[in-house]
Amino acid sequence: MIELRSDNTAGVAPEILAAVQAANTGSALAYGGDDLTAHLHEVVHEVFDHPTARVFPVTSGTAANSLSISASTPPWGAVLCHGSAHIITAEGGATSLLGGGAVMQGVPGDHALIDPGHLRTALESVRWGDPHESQPSVLSLTLPSDFGTIYQPDEIAALSAIARERGLRVHLDGARLANAVAALGCAPADVTWRAGVDVVSLGATKNGALSAEAIIVFDDRIADELVYRTKRSGHVTSKMRFQSAQVTAYLTDGLWLRLASTSNLRMAELAAGLEPLASYGVRLAERVDVNMAFVELPEPAIDALVDDGLLFYRMSPTSIRLVTSWQTTADEVAEATQRFRASVGAPA
Amino acid sequence: MIELRSDNTAGVAPEILAAVQAANTGSALAYGGDDLTAHLHEVVHEVFDHPTARVFPVTSGTAANSLSISASTPPWGAVLCHGSAHIITAEGGATSLLGGGAVMQGVPGDHALIDPGHLRTALESVRWGDPHESQPSVLSLTLPSDFGTIYQPDEIAALSAIARERGLRVHLDGARLANAVAALGCAPADVTWRAGVDVVSLGATKNGALSAEAIIVFDDRIADELVYRTKRSGHVTSKMRFQSAQVTAYLTDGLWLRLASTSNLRMAELAAGLEPLASYGVRLAERVDVNMAFVELPEPAIDALVDDGLLFYRMSPTSIRLVTSWQTTADEVAEATQRFRASVGAPA
Amino acid sequence: MIELRSDNTAGVAPEILAAVQAANTGSALAYGGDDLTAHLHEVVHEVFDHPTARVFPVTSGTAANSLSISASTPPWGAVLCHGSAHIITAEGGATSLLGGGAVMQGVPGDHALIDPGHLRTALESVRWGDPHESQPSVLSLTLPSDFGTIYQPDEIAALSAIARERGLRVHLDGARLANAVAALGCAPADVTWRAGVDVVSLGATKNGALSAEAIIVFDDRIADELVYRTKRSGHVTSKMRFQSAQVTAYLTDGLWLRLASTSNLRMAELAAGLEPLASYGVRLAERVDVNMAFVELPEPAIDALVDDGLLFYRMSPTSIRLVTSWQTTADEVAEATQRFRASVGAPA
Amino acid sequence: MIELRSDNTAGVAPEILAAVQAANTGSALAYGGDDLTAHLHEVVHEVFDHPTARVFPVTSGTAANSLSISASTPPWGAVLCHGSAHIITAEGGATSLLGGGAVMQGVPGDHALIDPGHLRTALESVRWGDPHESQPSVLSLTLPSDFGTIYQPDEIAALSAIARERGLRVHLDGARLANAVAALGCAPADVTWRAGVDVVSLGATKNGALSAEAIIVFDDRIADELVYRTKRSGHVTSKMRFQSAQVTAYLTDGLWLRLASTSNLRMAELAAGLEPLASYGVRLAERVDVNMAFVELPEPAIDALVDDGLLFYRMSPTSIRLVTSWQTTADEVAEATQRFRASVGAPA
Repeated sequence: MIELRSDNTAGVAPEILAAVQAANTGSALAYGGDDLTAHLHEVVHEVFDHPTARVFPVTSGTAANSLSISASTPPWGAVLCHGSAHIITAEGGATSLLGGGAVMQGVPGDHALIDPGHLRTALESVRWGDPHESQPSVLSLTLPSDFGTIYQPDEIAALSAIARERGLRVHLDGARLANAVAALGCAPADVTWRAGVDVVSLGATKNGALSAEAIIVFDDRIADELVYRTKRSGHVTSKMRFQSAQVTAYLTDGLWLRLASTSNLRMAELAAGLEPLASYGVRLAERVDVNMAFVELPEPAIDALVDDGLLFYRMSPTSIRLVTSWQTTADEVAEATQRFRASVGAPA
Repeated sequence: MIELRSDNTAGVAPEILAAVQAANTGSALAYGGDDLTAHLHEVVHEVFDHPTARVFPVTSGTAANSLSISASTPPWGAVLCHGSAHIITAEGGATSLLGGGAVMQGVPGDHALIDPGHLRTALESVRWGDPHESQPSVLSLTLPSDFGTIYQPDEIAALSAIARERGLRVHLDGARLANAVAALGCAPADVTWRAGVDVVSLGATKNGALSAEAIIVFDDRIADELVYRTKRSGHVTSKMRFQSAQVTAYLTDGLWLRLASTSNLRMAELAAGLEPLASYGVRLAERVDVNMAFVELPEPAIDALVDDGLLFYRMSPTSIRLVTSWQTTADEVAEATQRFRASVGAPA
Repeated sequence: MIELRSDNTAGVAPEILAAVQAANTGSALAYGGDDLTAHLHEVVHEVFDHPTARVFPVTSGTAANSLSISASTPPWGAVLCHGSAHIITAEGGATSLLGGGAVMQGVPGDHALIDPGHLRTALESVRWGDPHESQPSVLSLTLPSDFGTIYQPDEIAALSAIARERGLRVHLDGARLANAVAALGCAPADVTWRAGVDVVSLGATKNGALSAEAIIVFDDRIADELVYRTKRSGHVTSKMRFQSAQVTAYLTDGLWLRLASTSNLRMAELAAGLEPLASYGVRLAERVDVNMAFVELPEPAIDALVDDGLLFYRMSPTSIRLVTSWQTTADEVAEATQRFRASVGAPA
Repeated sequence: MIELRSDNTAGVAPEILAAVQAANTGSALAYGGDDLTAHLHEVVHEVFDHPTARVFPVTSGTAANSLSISASTPPWGAVLCHGSAHIITAEGGATSLLGGGAVMQGVPGDHALIDPGHLRTALESVRWGDPHESQPSVLSLTLPSDFGTIYQPDEIAALSAIARERGLRVHLDGARLANAVAALGCAPADVTWRAGVDVVSLGATKNGALSAEAIIVFDDRIADELVYRTKRSGHVTSKMRFQSAQVTAYLTDGLWLRLASTSNLRMAELAAGLEPLASYGVRLAERVDVNMAFVELPEPAIDALVDDGLLFYRMSPTSIRLVTSWQTTADEVAEATQRFRASVGAPA
């Protein structure tokens, strides 16, 4: 079995598990009143180069997204995001539930990235102040997108600027933020607050944590609401120190970026192995910016790969999604590449 | 420092941490599609002696309660519970949020336990079918109560019977269920489905887990809703195997009851040490059935205990709450007892 | 048949029906963009002696209450009101629904009126800023109360002051406000904004309108939210001019107070007729401040009154509620009094 | 001024105003417990040829739509409708609010009508039972559409059949249902329950009522929920008899269809007057099936029409929307036609 279904099938990085164990000492106030959670704030200040950012550890990406957005929009707001965004396609309407009936509206763009022109058009056509129309209130960007593509820092800044001109807040769904930051080689601040982002869903679980995500907030008004919104949605864990310990370890000494670099590298290797197979009908259907690839190939080849024990998601009869993780090895990539070659009858 | 603030300040039991580590092997499908979550179902079937119970691991007690209830009531329902219940006093309105605007109504009773006569009266005075009035739809019992008192199995059965006669569902908030079951020496089924309970919030975190609670459901209609309700409130963790591993270890070989018996025992010892101090103004304000005690004592004595490094919650100038945990030691109890004696000037 | 069930069983006052007919001329912009709605604002400014008050005509008292409050509280707020308040007992949880899961908490007091001492105590015991506890955010007063009793202007001011000190907004449920203002002989401002009230549910339907209530807002932040909240709950009628025409007629030339004075007078006459029957077991169970009376009398007497065609609500086997309206006549009161006398065997 | 902005700018039909006046006699139980509301049920049974249909009078179309749908979907559902549907574009997110966070998803199709192939594709691509994805639960059809186009009865039946196969409920937004039924010359049942529709928002206000719409329900489970949902959203008027009287008059002796036939006829006349102007750049941008037309014409011509006192909505610099009502006269149409001719320089 070679695991390429999702990075959330991977296990826990040793450094993070060690941090959990290390946190298991003495007693500590519940609900975030502990020293490890206090320390996490300092770590975030440093990593994000922002002296007053506030952090809310939660245990799922859906929680991070829907809570972040609910604290950024009135209930009558509209959340603008790409039509492929996780918050529209894969969270069961969480944002509408926790947002008090807020709605989501897709904005088009190639490569699963919002096009600034389309965003501008969308905002220009709004009847502002007319209660018949849901009022755009949040721009939610996904970095990397659900198709594994990334915005450049200046692209984020440009989109944010368009949104902020109209009074929208800017949310970043960073379920795989580490992969994007590692790929961009930028500072975390460059794709967040320096680019106009108010609140970030920082993923950690897919990239080596046990069960920890974090909402990172650069706007106190959003954070002040999250104090209440996290609690009343059941998202304040009692022994929060164990979540905080995970996120702290994750962000310390660049662990998050090292783990992400590995998964990015593995996917780059895999993509490099697939590219020569174009004449056999194997085609990368999307840019490979981080640790995901969408591949089109003949139906019998996919069937053969399945029979062969390669694990992935089938998007259609002739297309699949591949995801590498921090645990994916070079050997696995080499072996997977061989199987792809075999599946389409290319010489080994 | 002697920790008597809350059992959720305690750490993780070694068996549970070992289970988390053991779960960290290979890859596994996310969102509960893994073998450990499947196995957890079998463990619950055996422990609760119920072949079709379904389990939803979550990461907070507030999530377990509000989700359980939201799946048991229409949005126009009223949830009947004791006025001291956690769902009314300490969850920030989570049940009303996730219940779509359902309301909570207190039913009185001594010792923080609902009185069957009062429950009957409450139900008899309802204008059933009249939409002006919130329609009672769920009876939520807390075992043990927020004041550390417990119902006997036949008391639960009697209350459930009154409720079910009117079509209500019965929810059990078992944030500390292990402590009650250990104290009662009964089978888990005796205070749950055999006593008419439809859905249970099973606490584990306060009693030795890292971050894991579980909703245990005996009614498929509730469970069918929870599939969606857990996801869209952000309460389906992606690496659920690590929550399932915790709950499995917790329920295996009676660990949950051993841990709870320890905390119950420590509180019994502590209460036994306080009882002789009645003539010094130290009074147990409530029955001590499990691991909690509410104590009245002179204000200067409380001040002295605080100065002395005894950790507890002060409920008023002259009353405090004490809670022991699975980690509380006999030495700590002995030492705490000494400090109480000293605080009121009783001979050592 | 003599109608004493409720004032909302009465018909439409001729002046109001005439206003509806008069409004039926030409075409007019929908959704409040018409001249009659603009004019209503001026009428409200004059009647309430407030130059910037804003008005939102709606078609039910439940809408007026739940929308007013939803615009005055965050979703994690608690609305403090008397335990007998309509918003708790008779609106099916509307405030929790439209308030995004906000909760309601009863504050005690005699005569269905909140006691300032109890209000103060309730606010002092809150753990402010602690998200586990619903945070009091709105004080909702009912004038007259659901038991027909009224606050004096200075009592409202005192309660408001206590609430505002803690940052609460103050809402007035004035489903029968005209009856209170008529009874008090005060200016409408005296029991509203001058007494610290931010937003009023002004009832008109019970007192002669066809289907019109109005939310009157003295705080722009609340009004700004209501623009959206009224629409998205379906409470912006398209031909609003017909609602606005009703409320305008109602408030013009003191019509509302004339109608209310009549119903108050009828009830005063009826109460005067019942008082001499004390020795026959007929007892007024509550003060009669406006157009409602709660009467205790022997069960057979109630049965006899029912058989006799007197229409009223039975609260228990031995108590009833009587309500007069603007349509109740002196003859009906005289006849009802006779029937009461006969029912208990008093000489005619 | 010639009014062509919207049919909801028109007044009240004399028959309906007379019915309101006639209802103003004696006293009547509030909240729908009156004889007129009972009678309305019989009228609906006859007009819709359905012996058990239930009716809920409300006062806005947004209320009718959002309540109908909220009673037809679980909160985790997705409501499928055309992207141009009023519930998506013009109700401020009411369906998501009252539907507990349900989402809306657009299904494409020409002429603002859902294409059966696209509906089928949408339903086939759903991961049924997967809580990550909002589960399609309601098909909402708009008849006529927001662009004035209509489905044939067999087209509705075909779409309903596709939806019902997957367990969806079918809602019909009939804000202008009379116009469609009049245009189709069919029985009301043919485009509702006989075509697989479960619940209808029946508009009346745009077509001559004062403030009355009605939810007509053919499925008791939906109606049973509406009893509570209407009340707790503030949509049970206390003097409901005055709403019921309007809807009764509207549906009696074919008044609704007579009024609608007039507005349809006026638009047909107007469209006939515009068609010959094609060579002057005047183009009907959409089919004219009922009382609405979308017209493209040169920008200066639109400016001239505005200056000339013709009232309409401008959709873009070079396109406008025209709507006739039951009050539009033949003279107004003739005059409007002349102004169009003049605006583009065509000979009179």
